[in-house]
Amino acid sequence: MGTINTAVAVGVDLGGTTVKTGLVSKTGEILYHNKFDSKGDQGPESVIKQIALSIKDAIAHRGGGEIIGIGIGAPGVVDNDGYVKAPPNLLHWDAIPLAKRLQKEFDGITINVENDANCAAIAESRFGAGKEYPDFLFIIWGTGIGGGIILNRKLFRGPTGGAGEVGHISIDHEGPLCGCGARGCIEAYIGQKYLSHNTAEKVKARPSSLILKLVGGDYAKIEPIYISQAAEAGDELARSILTEAGTLLGVAVGGVMNTMDLRVSVIGGGVSAAGDLVINAVRDSVRAHVLKPLRDDIRVIQSKLGNNAGILGAAGLVL
Amino acid sequence: MGTINTAVAVGVDLGGTTVKTGLVSKTGEILYHNKFDSKGDQGPESVIKQIALSIKDAIAHRGGGEIIGIGIGAPGVVDNDGYVKAPPNLLHWDAIPLAKRLQKEFDGITINVENDANCAAIAESRFGAGKEYPDFLFIIWGTGIGGGIILNRKLFRGPTGGAGEVGHISIDHEGPLCGCGARGCIEAYIGQKYLSHNTAEKVKARPSSLILKLVGGDYAKIEPIYISQAAEAGDELARSILTEAGTLLGVAVGGVMNTMDLRVSVIGGGVSAAGDLVINAVRDSVRAHVLKPLRDDIRVIQSKLGNNAGILGAAGLVL
Repeated sequence: MGTINTAVAVGVDLGGTTVKTGLVSKTGEILYHNKFDSKGDQGPESVIKQIALSIKDAIAHRGGGEIIGIGIGAPGVVDNDGYVKAPPNLLHWDAIPLAKRLQKEFDGITINVENDANCAAIAESRFGAGKEYPDFLFIIWGTGIGGGIILNRKLFRGPTGGAGEVGHISIDHEGPLCGCGARGCIEAYIGQKYLSHNTAEKVKARPSSLILKLVGGDYAKIEPIYISQAAEAGDELARSILTEAGTLLGVAVGGVMNTMDLRVSVIGGGVSAAGDLVINAVRDSVRAHVLKPLRDDIRVIQSKLGNNAGILGAAGLVL
Repeated sequence: MGTINTAVAVGVDLGGTTVKTGLVSKTGEILYHNKFDSKGDQGPESVIKQIALSIKDAIAHRGGGEIIGIGIGAPGVVDNDGYVKAPPNLLHWDAIPLAKRLQKEFDGITINVENDANCAAIAESRFGAGKEYPDFLFIIWGTGIGGGIILNRKLFRGPTGGAGEVGHISIDHEGPLCGCGARGCIEAYIGQKYLSHNTAEKVKARPSSLILKLVGGDYAKIEPIYISQAAEAGDELARSILTEAGTLLGVAVGGVMNTMDLRVSVIGGGVSAAGDLVINAVRDSVRAHVLKPLRDDIRVIQSKLGNNAGILGAAGLVL
């Protein structure tokens, strides 16, 4: 990376294990980035200290670039007053006004905080797969199923900042019990833990599957990345599992599209990296579940930004 | 009705069989109203003529009141250019720019057109059960299941005007086939036709139910009004059917609330008139299906305006 001589935003991607911070140009280039331990198991004070360290390090690398502002993507709900509430994997953290807490260390610089899935949605809207679509539903398909809604190129936060929680849409009122206490949540079918578990059961019935080879015969090690790899290599069981998972996701996405009059969904997160097989399954299923006036216009596309979406979307909060 | 001496909006409630028009004050009083045959089976020209007649009749009764504007609630999707598209029960009607077509007859008067479920949502927001809630999901539970979304006291139309179509949210991806072609749509469980049919099946297994007496022993005559009446009289089968229907509706409503960060739902339409039994069932089910941060704030309430919601909401378009 050469010397920076353009205005940059600081984008912070806060997670349970790491905090990653980047300097992002107005056109969405990451000109510098770092990675710190977030100390998510040591309580909020430690985490806030790590965030500050990470931001200071990035700012120290700004060269001749002016700092436009600091954007932070955090897990958990971020309410209208900037409180980050009950972020999963950040222990002993109830509700913290994160921007306010950091402000005294970065006097005079605008700091905005937003939920991480919402940040990723913003990133796809400004710099990624959603660039040409003013309105879309972004889905992040990983450990859980999260989402963000972009309307007229802006994030739709809902009345209190909690919008986009699509993971607990029930696709079967008599379906499997989800960790949230309800039945048939889409997350309880295709969230990483559930998908891995269900796949292990299926592999037991068909141990010739490549999936089992990829995990060295250890059923407990089965997770989506191996299902994807096996599917890419043509393993039939893996392909049918991912197709079914995409089909189920499409049921939930279709309901959102009907309700909100949307036609486009951008799918990100680890499982979506499996590519066309999954994306096509979601698309076919969404088309089958939306009303006729929407059907022909349905677009389901893979996210473009991968792991950079967090930093880019956070920077997008102040760009 | 005495002589009118206040400014009034003209609210038109267009349906497949009748067109009802009222003069509505700024405070939501209907000061005059009429009812014409809509001639929905005779093609758009006849319908437009009937609407014009109905509006003219209302305006002739305005007394000393100034006409603020004309609002029309129509079945079908109303797009951003004011085209009313494929309204059910209005035959041979593809897409008509209804306001434009009426404008020459009512020169100088603002005419706005909106989908009828959206109009009813507006009415509940301005004058009814949603008055104290800036954000809510309105459900109309009748022949079909429709809806309207109010955000910050305004109608959320979505990108092209189709928002609020909650009837085809699937609550079981392997559920019964719906008229729309998908499986498990909430409408395929509790829309009038489906609910009546399912109830008939249950009554056959328990012919001692009061429901059967209310329809004079004719299974084909079973419909929600009789289920409600039987439930009110304490009939156990009827009570269990309505409770189950409300529970199923709550699954779909819960998904919308999670996605859009809403906490309040107003339930209107014929079946909701059954009252507390149904409303409580919906509420319990919504609470069980939303995420924890929403749970305590969930409100599910019965609509207040009944059959007047159409006229009031249409008037609300120009008030």
